[in-house]
Amino acid sequence: MRNIKLTLEYDGTDFHGFQRQRELRTVQGVLEQCFSHRLGEPIGVIGAGRTDAGVHALGQVVNFRTTRPVLAARLAGVLNAALPRDVKIQSCEEVAEDFHARRCARSRTYRYSVIVRKTPSPLLGRYALMVSDRPAVGRMSRAARRLVGRRDFAAFRASGSETETTERTLLGAECRRQGDAIWIITEAESYLYRMVRNMVSALLAVGGGEMTVEELMRAVADGDRRRLPPPAPACGLCLVRVSY
Amino acid sequence: MRNIKLTLEYDGTDFHGFQRQRELRTVQGVLEQCFSHRLGEPIGVIGAGRTDAGVHALGQVVNFRTTRPVLAARLAGVLNAALPRDVKIQSCEEVAEDFHARRCARSRTYRYSVIVRKTPSPLLGRYALMVSDRPAVGRMSRAARRLVGRRDFAAFRASGSETETTERTLLGAECRRQGDAIWIITEAESYLYRMVRNMVSALLAVGGGEMTVEELMRAVADGDRRRLPPPAPACGLCLVRVSY
Repeated sequence: MRNIKLTLEYDGTDFHGFQRQRELRTVQGVLEQCFSHRLGEPIGVIGAGRTDAGVHALGQVVNFRTTRPVLAARLAGVLNAALPRDVKIQSCEEVAEDFHARRCARSRTYRYSVIVRKTPSPLLGRYALMVSDRPAVGRMSRAARRLVGRRDFAAFRASGSETETTERTLLGAECRRQGDAIWIITEAESYLYRMVRNMVSALLAVGGGEMTVEELMRAVADGDRRRLPPPAPACGLCLVRVSY
Repeated sequence: MRNIKLTLEYDGTDFHGFQRQRELRTVQGVLEQCFSHRLGEPIGVIGAGRTDAGVHALGQVVNFRTTRPVLAARLAGVLNAALPRDVKIQSCEEVAEDFHARRCARSRTYRYSVIVRKTPSPLLGRYALMVSDRPAVGRMSRAARRLVGRRDFAAFRASGSETETTERTLLGAECRRQGDAIWIITEAESYLYRMVRNMVSALLAVGGGEMTVEELMRAVADGDRRRLPPPAPACGLCLVRVSY
């Protein structure tokens, strides 16, 4: 049995998220169906990050086991030929038998893209959130840095979701600006469900002046989801890297 | 009767080109249907450039006539609310009664995007052609500059297409490179059908060393389409500006 690690890029627009779901087109579902068909044996795919519906990836990592003796160097080409154009393998390697894309991951880095623009953009709007007023990126950066560290992130959990613990370690968070584009980049070992999109909307509220950095930090300290805005739309989010 | 000029951005992927066609989703068809419904009177839309299926636009210009007394300043918002997310109005103004988006246009500027990359990219591939080897952009630029001027462009006409005259004036043509991206930008009063995509594939053949600048110029002088490569794919092409 060989263990294969793949790095994937996908356009999340037409997927109902990463995780396999009956009757719905998901990244995991498409990969398992294509790989099983191409390799002629049932293939189960393990993903590093369960991206939501509409979320993109530049560097999602998955692994799967196969008995087929295809060389890793040739496998990417063989499997890419079978994959639809909105999900493609970027690299492929054979790894140790105990490598597990989710359990072995040390951190996941997400990037959220915002573009300042008065009018809707069909070309940019597929991959970014459009905002009509320029937020104060300096203030957003200060707020982002304050969030870094190990803490209870219950305030950024999806409303109604239940998890055993809402403590997480945010390894990094920063905001960058280039012209009319703003990127919010976060790195963490793992996240709560919807945590990045809830953090992004809160940072944008700080940047837009609807909330001060102190008010944000108090809402986070109190674990009070209701004092924070609804999650930013999925289209702006991209899983850029998984580190091992 | 008021005459309204609109500047439009669209993602051409899911349109069968600009021009109205029975039973097919086209930009003109969608605009006319939405505007007629919203304004409550039959609206006919005139476009500056008839982009092909899959070709995008950042600055397509159209005009239409209406009896409705809506202020131009409000019209963009009203009509954008009715338009699908892959075509949106960027600006809107009332113009003189004799303004005609196609006949009054002095020039159309197209940009073709190429990205040098070994692997297929679901995120970039929607808006650019991927090539695995880096073409010589300097050589492409020299060839592009040689094509500028008034001449017979029959060699770049779509195979099998018939037009009265194949003479056109290319006002500008240049190639720019930034990192792994290459842009080919052309400006002309008007183009033959498929002319830009045929010119792009010929320039890429020069850049890839399959053809010298002199061989290209001879094929153009002879009007010989068969010595030139097939058109570059539509996805890389974008109508960026129409000048009046």
